[in-house]
Amino acid sequence: MKAYRIPQFGLDRLEIVETETPIPGPNEVLVEVHAVSLNFRDLRVAEGKYDPRMRLPRQPCSDGAGEVVQVGAGVSRFKNGDRVTSIFMQNWIEGPLTAAKSRGALGGDVDGMLATHVALSEEGLIPVPAHLTYAEAATLPCAAVTAWHALVHAAAVKPGDTVLIQGTGGVSIFALQFAKLLGARVLGISSSDEKIERAKALGLDAAVNYRSYPDWARWAIEQTGGEGVDLVVEVGGQGTFNKSLKAVRVGGTVAQIGVLSAGEEQISVLPILHKQISVRGIYVGSRAMFEEMNRAIAQARFRPVVDHVYSFEEVPLALRQMADGSHFGKIVIDTSRAD
Amino acid sequence: MKAYRIPQFGLDRLEIVETETPIPGPNEVLVEVHAVSLNFRDLRVAEGKYDPRMRLPRQPCSDGAGEVVQVGAGVSRFKNGDRVTSIFMQNWIEGPLTAAKSRGALGGDVDGMLATHVALSEEGLIPVPAHLTYAEAATLPCAAVTAWHALVHAAAVKPGDTVLIQGTGGVSIFALQFAKLLGARVLGISSSDEKIERAKALGLDAAVNYRSYPDWARWAIEQTGGEGVDLVVEVGGQGTFNKSLKAVRVGGTVAQIGVLSAGEEQISVLPILHKQISVRGIYVGSRAMFEEMNRAIAQARFRPVVDHVYSFEEVPLALRQMADGSHFGKIVIDTSRAD
Amino acid sequence: MKAYRIPQFGLDRLEIVETETPIPGPNEVLVEVHAVSLNFRDLRVAEGKYDPRMRLPRQPCSDGAGEVVQVGAGVSRFKNGDRVTSIFMQNWIEGPLTAAKSRGALGGDVDGMLATHVALSEEGLIPVPAHLTYAEAATLPCAAVTAWHALVHAAAVKPGDTVLIQGTGGVSIFALQFAKLLGARVLGISSSDEKIERAKALGLDAAVNYRSYPDWARWAIEQTGGEGVDLVVEVGGQGTFNKSLKAVRVGGTVAQIGVLSAGEEQISVLPILHKQISVRGIYVGSRAMFEEMNRAIAQARFRPVVDHVYSFEEVPLALRQMADGSHFGKIVIDTSRAD
Amino acid sequence: MKAYRIPQFGLDRLEIVETETPIPGPNEVLVEVHAVSLNFRDLRVAEGKYDPRMRLPRQPCSDGAGEVVQVGAGVSRFKNGDRVTSIFMQNWIEGPLTAAKSRGALGGDVDGMLATHVALSEEGLIPVPAHLTYAEAATLPCAAVTAWHALVHAAAVKPGDTVLIQGTGGVSIFALQFAKLLGARVLGISSSDEKIERAKALGLDAAVNYRSYPDWARWAIEQTGGEGVDLVVEVGGQGTFNKSLKAVRVGGTVAQIGVLSAGEEQISVLPILHKQISVRGIYVGSRAMFEEMNRAIAQARFRPVVDHVYSFEEVPLALRQMADGSHFGKIVIDTSRAD
Repeated sequence: MKAYRIPQFGLDRLEIVETETPIPGPNEVLVEVHAVSLNFRDLRVAEGKYDPRMRLPRQPCSDGAGEVVQVGAGVSRFKNGDRVTSIFMQNWIEGPLTAAKSRGALGGDVDGMLATHVALSEEGLIPVPAHLTYAEAATLPCAAVTAWHALVHAAAVKPGDTVLIQGTGGVSIFALQFAKLLGARVLGISSSDEKIERAKALGLDAAVNYRSYPDWARWAIEQTGGEGVDLVVEVGGQGTFNKSLKAVRVGGTVAQIGVLSAGEEQISVLPILHKQISVRGIYVGSRAMFEEMNRAIAQARFRPVVDHVYSFEEVPLALRQMADGSHFGKIVIDTSRAD
Repeated sequence: MKAYRIPQFGLDRLEIVETETPIPGPNEVLVEVHAVSLNFRDLRVAEGKYDPRMRLPRQPCSDGAGEVVQVGAGVSRFKNGDRVTSIFMQNWIEGPLTAAKSRGALGGDVDGMLATHVALSEEGLIPVPAHLTYAEAATLPCAAVTAWHALVHAAAVKPGDTVLIQGTGGVSIFALQFAKLLGARVLGISSSDEKIERAKALGLDAAVNYRSYPDWARWAIEQTGGEGVDLVVEVGGQGTFNKSLKAVRVGGTVAQIGVLSAGEEQISVLPILHKQISVRGIYVGSRAMFEEMNRAIAQARFRPVVDHVYSFEEVPLALRQMADGSHFGKIVIDTSRAD
Repeated sequence: MKAYRIPQFGLDRLEIVETETPIPGPNEVLVEVHAVSLNFRDLRVAEGKYDPRMRLPRQPCSDGAGEVVQVGAGVSRFKNGDRVTSIFMQNWIEGPLTAAKSRGALGGDVDGMLATHVALSEEGLIPVPAHLTYAEAATLPCAAVTAWHALVHAAAVKPGDTVLIQGTGGVSIFALQFAKLLGARVLGISSSDEKIERAKALGLDAAVNYRSYPDWARWAIEQTGGEGVDLVVEVGGQGTFNKSLKAVRVGGTVAQIGVLSAGEEQISVLPILHKQISVRGIYVGSRAMFEEMNRAIAQARFRPVVDHVYSFEEVPLALRQMADGSHFGKIVIDTSRAD
Repeated sequence: MKAYRIPQFGLDRLEIVETETPIPGPNEVLVEVHAVSLNFRDLRVAEGKYDPRMRLPRQPCSDGAGEVVQVGAGVSRFKNGDRVTSIFMQNWIEGPLTAAKSRGALGGDVDGMLATHVALSEEGLIPVPAHLTYAEAATLPCAAVTAWHALVHAAAVKPGDTVLIQGTGGVSIFALQFAKLLGARVLGISSSDEKIERAKALGLDAAVNYRSYPDWARWAIEQTGGEGVDLVVEVGGQGTFNKSLKAVRVGGTVAQIGVLSAGEEQISVLPILHKQISVRGIYVGSRAMFEEMNRAIAQARFRPVVDHVYSFEEVPLALRQMADGSHFGKIVIDTSRAD
């Protein structure tokens, strides 16, 4: 089998290694990985900016989909031939997050999915909805579950609500699509008029280019009759948090995802108080949320947006696209043709 | 009647004026005010630091209790002789806060309670629990409702939970007493060993002096077996917010009350994300919350902690005590002997 | 003005009376009623089966829409020319229902909407979404709010869920339309193949004719992969309740609306216990729920289903249609041409 | 080892058998059982009235506590010497109940705890709070978790609320004690004045003997100022359900536990509708609820009420006491002296 490894931090240090295909232990299954999707976190892990104390070497990436090709002793959830997707935190099955459950994130705490084969606990995998390709299924574990968690669990978005998304990365495009599925109105901001047009084709109701309209919070307030939006899916970089507090209505929610943020921000907490805002930290979600989302995906025959599919060898190229932010939706690696 | 007025900002500008006792209009009642309690907000209002654009002159203070002495046309909720307390936001009757309901806060948006008589809408008053004195009832509208809102509605505190309070001001002491009523464990921080002892007499389970133990977040984590507390009632000044994010458990809540905070803080939002923290802005509460709290107060024969009762003429003295922070619980003004 | 009156119980006793047009008192507005919709309750009220102790004479019907033509002293919510709809319980503004709020239902506790003019408290009316006709707006106060309450508040229906509706009356058709708006799958039962086809045109996913398939609960279980449905909107007559308990999944909800039920049922409570079912009594909803629903209706440009519009004089005919159950959606009375 | 077996239904068929002590398989632990508590369900299981199709022979009882004496391969949650309690449904770890999780109830679907030794999955056990004896710990898995689930999760009981309990069996006495811990007021009904006195010593606020006061629902309404109670913990036999619907307030909750009920009841569903009652089926609870309850039990140094401790040989005697209903709190079997 082939696998990517981070021997030392730095994008240019990333390497492909050839190793023995693992034999699944008790309650484990061996998955032949067909597709892996990239998240901004994977870029930062490789650069050493996600967790500088991460133990190396590390096999990166949390999101993958493939076929069960061997099952260990005692496995009851899967059989050979089943199509499966990984879950992000291998120990967060259900219920609220705890410190114990938060350990075991793929491609961070433990080795991840960027390989032709992986052996995982059967508890850390779930079935792929029948209508999805492997490439599509591989987009779900981190970005889609994060968006679902924010919209359905943190903010209980419903018809009549207005949701604001930022940019057109993986989480934001899933948030857009799920918000439309939930019957809500969606406002967006982006630095690209062309991306705004593509998002409108997916249902985005209105948008501004934040380069030409830096006071987009004011615009969002105007778009909602002076009230402000019900939910901001806050994924932004430096300086967006305070604007999100301004854009949200009295009693509204800011889902703090912030995968793009780095470090500290000068924040005025007074709006949180006076507008009785809920700031909800969202860090992916449980397997139960993923299964619930997949029921919705199957029922609606929902399709994720795949920006581009790279070959296994092109991972460095794919990470550079992630870094330059030119993508719209998800970047996928085809791991099925690696060997 | 006599009343305090802020003709211009500045504690030394506060003045007592003598005016005509108002006649209650339709659906209004005239209240002979017996007691008023002070909040930190009242100090900042008088100083011009709460809302520099507030229209003056303004009659200050939100919290008062007294007797109904005259009812206007159509009044059905009260009759002469009824003992009543004011509600903080006169238009927030029930349900979630909206921009419209948030207007009409006593002693801020509209004239307040620091007078011998006030005329208010009958909707802006509620009955006083039978076992409470006027002085005790006057402590409830802002600080107690804030604490109840944070514990019962934002965090749903239950037996087995641990709550952390900061200092010994009005909100913090109500939070301590309510948390014990709810069956929870309470940790505290204070700059005064003597106040810590007084708080322990009210049920505080453990405390540290933050002057001698500045890393109190670490202490709180140790006190909870390494997990962190379920709820921080965050009322602190500069620099406490980041420590509160540290002290709270994965999935825990920080109730952002922050009456003592001024301006911006350098905040690292990463813990909110990684620990999936809920930061909930709490700005007093609805009349329905107040009524619900009063049912609990009546059932438990709960008594608020009154630090000191000042005479009507001693208001400047009382505000100076509020400023120096020497109080423990609530500062009350006896308005019944003013004329 | 003209108005219907129930002088004594019995459909044939219903009469049209000509009276003085009321002058709105303080905080009241006079509405020129343009349309009224009928509910099954109105039939039972007239028959004396809803509340045999109801004081007569009574002006029937809870649901109407019209134009504000005069405002009383102190009115601030409306002005002449505004298009408004009545709310069902005039005192249930917001928050959970209480005994006090439950009094004041139009066409039951107090005189209702079946007249050319009514004077109501300004608190008991809300604006009509701009895209709706008066006939459409008149369908909302009872049936639509009931369905919204059940789906959004009692069961929090979301994409991936399955909802079962019974028949094609007002509540059931609103439940169908709202469930589709919420992204859910909808199963239906009916005694008419032709109505099933009409419901499918509105989005119904699957249905059976319960005359040919009396064990429809079994069918619903099969349709959901053996799990059972998430929510049953239970409006049925004799004998449906136990089947609804069978059709619902473990942990699911039965919204007990039961407008068609009369009297007692022999119920086995064991399934409630073993399947941990929530049975939620739903009796219309608050003004706040109505406003929230109207935001969704406006955003989605949602249109209610009007079965037939009768003239003011045809009310007895319309009630007979309600009695024979031949309608699909809502029966409306045009009150604008009455005089 | 020794164990009880139901070879055929009938209390007189119950027998003690001597078998090989099991060896724990992978992820299993062997527990030396020190104490077992009885539930009404155990009586009905033995009589064949709980599930007439249950496969026999069956080792009865769901509730036990003991010491870990051997651990199988891969066990990480426990080590030898740990004090543990069983959980009722071995597969309901967390989150809402599903059909899959509901299978695996001890002493019903699978063999139970009435033995000197049992081998269970490590996931089906939790630690005993340090201050509890084995006899006390053995009372918790079914009755206490049921009461906790009803009060904390179904009804979110808080100070100011009123809870009504029925009788003095295991669930009712736990409901009483937990309701007091939650700060609520508790009303009770019983057929025994002497038991009422004992319950008052545990905090019961008021009670009536339902033999002398059959219209106890009326009494409960009077006790709550005409409003009705917030929660009825409904465990009753024939005829209590309709009275519980009468006793509960508008918008209140009936927790349907009904372990004493048999078969169908003639129920009027109209009060559910008109009073917007929630009827919540409660069937024990998840391991997560049990752990949460144990945190509260440990923090409050809560002690369960043990009515009587029988020897291993006296199980038939103990079941007869369960049948005659003379107990107050829990009946316990000491399994430590069986061999």
